Amino acid sequence: MAKGTSNAISPTRNEDYAEWYQQVIKAADLAENSPVRGCMVIKPWGYALWENIQRELDVLFKATGHKNAYFPLFIPKSFLEKEAEHVEGFAKECAVVTHHRLVQSADGTLIPDPEALLDEPLIVRPTSETIIGATFAKWVQSYRDLPLLINQWANVVRWELRTRMFLRTTEFLWQEGHTAHETAEEAQEETRRMLDVYAHFAEHFMAMPVVRGMKSAAERFPGAVDTYSIEAMMQDRKALQAGTSHFLGQNFAHASGIKFQSREGTEEFAWTTSWGMSTRMIGGLIMTHSDDDGLIVPPRVAPAHVVILPIIRSEETRGQVLEYVNQVAAELRSRSYEGRPVLVEVDNRDTRGGNKQWEWIKKGVPVRLEIGPRDAERGTVSFARRDRSGEKMDVPRAELPDRLVAVLGEMQEGLFERAKSFRAEHMRPIGSREEFFAFFTPKNAEKPEIHGGFAVSPWCGDSKCEAEIKEALKVTIRCLPLEPMDDGGLTRCVLCGGEKKETAVFAKSY
Amino acid sequence: MAKGTSNAISPTRNEDYAEWYQQVIKAADLAENSPVRGCMVIKPWGYALWENIQRELDVLFKATGHKNAYFPLFIPKSFLEKEAEHVEGFAKECAVVTHHRLVQSADGTLIPDPEALLDEPLIVRPTSETIIGATFAKWVQSYRDLPLLINQWANVVRWELRTRMFLRTTEFLWQEGHTAHETAEEAQEETRRMLDVYAHFAEHFMAMPVVRGMKSAAERFPGAVDTYSIEAMMQDRKALQAGTSHFLGQNFAHASGIKFQSREGTEEFAWTTSWGMSTRMIGGLIMTHSDDDGLIVPPRVAPAHVVILPIIRSEETRGQVLEYVNQVAAELRSRSYEGRPVLVEVDNRDTRGGNKQWEWIKKGVPVRLEIGPRDAERGTVSFARRDRSGEKMDVPRAELPDRLVAVLGEMQEGLFERAKSFRAEHMRPIGSREEFFAFFTPKNAEKPEIHGGFAVSPWCGDSKCEAEIKEALKVTIRCLPLEPMDDGGLTRCVLCGGEKKETAVFAKSY
Repeated sequence: MAKGTSNAISPTRNEDYAEWYQQVIKAADLAENSPVRGCMVIKPWGYALWENIQRELDVLFKATGHKNAYFPLFIPKSFLEKEAEHVEGFAKECAVVTHHRLVQSADGTLIPDPEALLDEPLIVRPTSETIIGATFAKWVQSYRDLPLLINQWANVVRWELRTRMFLRTTEFLWQEGHTAHETAEEAQEETRRMLDVYAHFAEHFMAMPVVRGMKSAAERFPGAVDTYSIEAMMQDRKALQAGTSHFLGQNFAHASGIKFQSREGTEEFAWTTSWGMSTRMIGGLIMTHSDDDGLIVPPRVAPAHVVILPIIRSEETRGQVLEYVNQVAAELRSRSYEGRPVLVEVDNRDTRGGNKQWEWIKKGVPVRLEIGPRDAERGTVSFARRDRSGEKMDVPRAELPDRLVAVLGEMQEGLFERAKSFRAEHMRPIGSREEFFAFFTPKNAEKPEIHGGFAVSPWCGDSKCEAEIKEALKVTIRCLPLEPMDDGGLTRCVLCGGEKKETAVFAKSY
Repeated sequence: MAKGTSNAISPTRNEDYAEWYQQVIKAADLAENSPVRGCMVIKPWGYALWENIQRELDVLFKATGHKNAYFPLFIPKSFLEKEAEHVEGFAKECAVVTHHRLVQSADGTLIPDPEALLDEPLIVRPTSETIIGATFAKWVQSYRDLPLLINQWANVVRWELRTRMFLRTTEFLWQEGHTAHETAEEAQEETRRMLDVYAHFAEHFMAMPVVRGMKSAAERFPGAVDTYSIEAMMQDRKALQAGTSHFLGQNFAHASGIKFQSREGTEEFAWTTSWGMSTRMIGGLIMTHSDDDGLIVPPRVAPAHVVILPIIRSEETRGQVLEYVNQVAAELRSRSYEGRPVLVEVDNRDTRGGNKQWEWIKKGVPVRLEIGPRDAERGTVSFARRDRSGEKMDVPRAELPDRLVAVLGEMQEGLFERAKSFRAEHMRPIGSREEFFAFFTPKNAEKPEIHGGFAVSPWCGDSKCEAEIKEALKVTIRCLPLEPMDDGGLTRCVLCGGEKKETAVFAKSY
């Protein structure tokens, strides 16, 4: 496949965006569907991305005073019944464990042993507010035990009807923060602090610009008083909710009995929060940065920063080339980028050079170095950046480490800037109902996925207006942004013409 | 509680070993029972131990060429039916998911929705050979795809009747390595390599001396050709199997269809291995090093290396003391111990100094520093080691960082040496049946748990002899050690007098 004539990924984004997404995952070897309905296998390159996300988020959580702990996978059915709205939201589609043994049936196959029926079914956690709440109720006695700042790294299960790798899977990996506080104000501060941590992580590590905002009542987490989210724009202009932070008020404290003796000696219910980010973030990364040649990974979360491809033209020069390659690799590994050693892969496999190169392009490694016998002789390397296709340059070995670190920094910044420009192009204030409908109506009937993008518009605050556009256009309020945004300046709701109560970001979403 | 008059943990090891174990877990704030039968909540201090174990093991796995990946939590029932012995071993007591929805019943409670019965029940993974095998069958086509070296960090569930925190819980955390190879020899080498990695980790990080050996047929992993383990001696002289490594032959390759085209062009089944270490290791750590004052943590896996306890005698000197404390903390944090920064906790809580000190003793932090107004004035700290109770010395601030790093190294080594001496005292060659029975028969009927320890004895290789002592003494063959060991020199089986085939390590075990 030669550059200029065609692309590594077929179909392209333009041809079929949804299928392009699946093909990038396949070409970059990130994940695949498993034999278990709706569950994926995360392959080494995809899992390494998740490990990097974990490590960096974990540092941010610990720096804000949180400690990790681990709670049971199973939630007794009765726990889910405690918080009414929470039941509505989570008790519906979930994995229910009813038996604790299999037994051989008459025909020799295994069946759940009728003798081993559980007294109370167990639910595989869809989220852990209830089980962690029950534990917090034991840990919290006095205001001295507060704030209680806990995070859990875990797998969770939600029985989704339609699944899509990374974006919506039956099982997924995530972290869930759970905290308890003395006052509503402190819990609200925590909710906002963690939203800011998510925004910081998305922008500075994933190079993914986000709008921070509050959800409308219709889009709140079941059981929350306020839900905040960060919303990113994908290349099909849809929104991806990339992280959420919930102020739970005293709802779960009431349901779980999290009480404490206050400074005044009275018994009070604690104020709690929860917040989560998941493997969905990898779907967001793919759809923010990738192109028609495959994945592009921001250097700060890349599983490898650079791959070295030795070019062996003959057996005579093999030894010389490989020795030079190893020296270059060692020099690069001794350098650090953003606090961790530069990660170097050397691809020594005996396959055709062109194929190898394309494999690494599709995997999105930031920098590729080709090293052949002439490079070894002249003391150079052939340097190619993933974000500038077709461009190759010879770099003297002595300059390489500095050049590489500088380029990684440039790429990280460049990807963020490119994503910001893309968003700026497709996000705009819309003040009239007609324009709003036109914005969200695809111009091309064959490409229903291509529409305007994010509309920033005045809203009356009535959920009827939300329901109308959800039905008519599949558009929802993504958030009520925390920063002031230009909404076209009108004082009337873009939908019903009623008095404006809020400025909202409207979009189609994943 | 004053030193010299009594101990922090009641009962002591001598009074009631099993209860002492539970009390150490409680006093060190490591974990607690959860509302879900047999599942524990791992509290921050316990989870930090696990994070350190994970991090260090992960480095060793990656250094031996393994990559992490993630496979589904659920295993279709039919997968478990594929490998006959494996079914026997694992299909018995497991969590069975039968429904994917809850629904409100007539009386308002939630019940599994009869309409949402799964066509095929799903098992919460007790181990992942079958689901990973099915995936490997897709990944492996040619000898060029081998060896395939994968590790997974995950939670697993085995429905245990009797549970004990960390040692045997319904859900536990572990890593499971799964590899596929071209030849039996390569797979056997891998099995032994990972056993050695476990032994290295146990001895050099956990300070836990282990015997490496092969399991007898009766104690093999269901479906394995050979099972190897590392066995450690706890302070009640029982053995703890602390890690296992299995050579699976072609059993799972046959069951899952892992086939490849060989160098000769023929189609062959791959040779596979699996190996695991779990949160059980924390139980082993507790029972190897702790004393009647609580936990003692080897510095290389300690959640904190040192705690600073400011002693505030009056409001006038508070500012001065805290400033000095922060300076000392910063100086220590800028140093590193075994490749990571020295981990310092500062305990500023307004509780009584004596209580605080005892809390940290019980948590097992290697070094405690007390700093009061006189220390701040004189430029000293009061330095106490967890492994030498009662001893305190004044150390000049300038000498502190070097002293601390040196003491951590000494403690790590000292704990290992102490555990080795303990094992040496209670492990010996036994050649006669009479002596063997006496060795494993408690001297004191009130303390059935105190017996001889590990017996190294000749064995005929017949499982009847194993069955006899399991029944009579609750003693099993822990392993057939890989290193030559003195077994008393007799050439006849210690039990039946038949011809010696192997030297075995016999012990009671967890």
